[in-house]
Amino acid sequence: MITQIDHIGIAVRDIEASMQMYSKIFGVESFHREQVPTQGVDVASFELNGVRIELTAALSETSPIATFIAKRGEGIHHVAFRTDAIQSDLDRLGADGVRLVHTEPQVGAHEMLIAFMHPSSTGGVLMELCSPKH
Amino acid sequence: MITQIDHIGIAVRDIEASMQMYSKIFGVESFHREQVPTQGVDVASFELNGVRIELTAALSETSPIATFIAKRGEGIHHVAFRTDAIQSDLDRLGADGVRLVHTEPQVGAHEMLIAFMHPSSTGGVLMELCSPKH
Repeated sequence: MITQIDHIGIAVRDIEASMQMYSKIFGVESFHREQVPTQGVDVASFELNGVRIELTAALSETSPIATFIAKRGEGIHHVAFRTDAIQSDLDRLGADGVRLVHTEPQVGAHEMLIAFMHPSSTGGVLMELCSPKH
Repeated sequence: MITQIDHIGIAVRDIEASMQMYSKIFGVESFHREQVPTQGVDVASFELNGVRIELTAALSETSPIATFIAKRGEGIHHVAFRTDAIQSDLDRLGADGVRLVHTEPQVGAHEMLIAFMHPSSTGGVLMELCSPKH
């Protein structure tokens, strides 16, 4: 079952410049910084009352973030929802006709299991499901 | 000071169809429904652990939501951050060089005072500040 918004993923070109900008707007003092080579991304995140904002830059030109920015520019890339049962939610959504990018969870940043739904099934919104690995 | 994500605004073409889709994905049983003629929008919202998802359709072709959908299609329109001092945050951000759509708060849905920052100053993300009216 989906229980809360886990994070908002924002595609950025220059992660250092974006960290400075978000620091100024939100008074952020520290970011969690992590590279996830399997997803091709460099992530700087901070938390607002239990929900993370994840600034995400491409590690290479073949990263999905590079493709997104080339098409649409910088901006909100996806919204991630936390679930307490990721596989059964994926099964339920797939059976309900929702087009899934991943039918089984992958390992993402923050040691989370993650899976994406396709925006063609979700009104243009790229949605991620995620769940702590342990 | 910005304290939390208040809501995510999603631009939709057909609010009834979108309510059905979100009901299916999130198991939503009821939506708060409200029209805000001053903003030109029809809003159906539900809450996930204290953060609202606001499905927002245009009330007319001149609504900013109609313009957004014509340019970019359906999808995430903005993220709103709750502040405990909206006017002083606007003053601080304006003085810091952030381009503001509203230098003074307007009245939005849910009896909130709202103001938008321009996405050219915020890495392509349309950000709203909001604060309860009373």
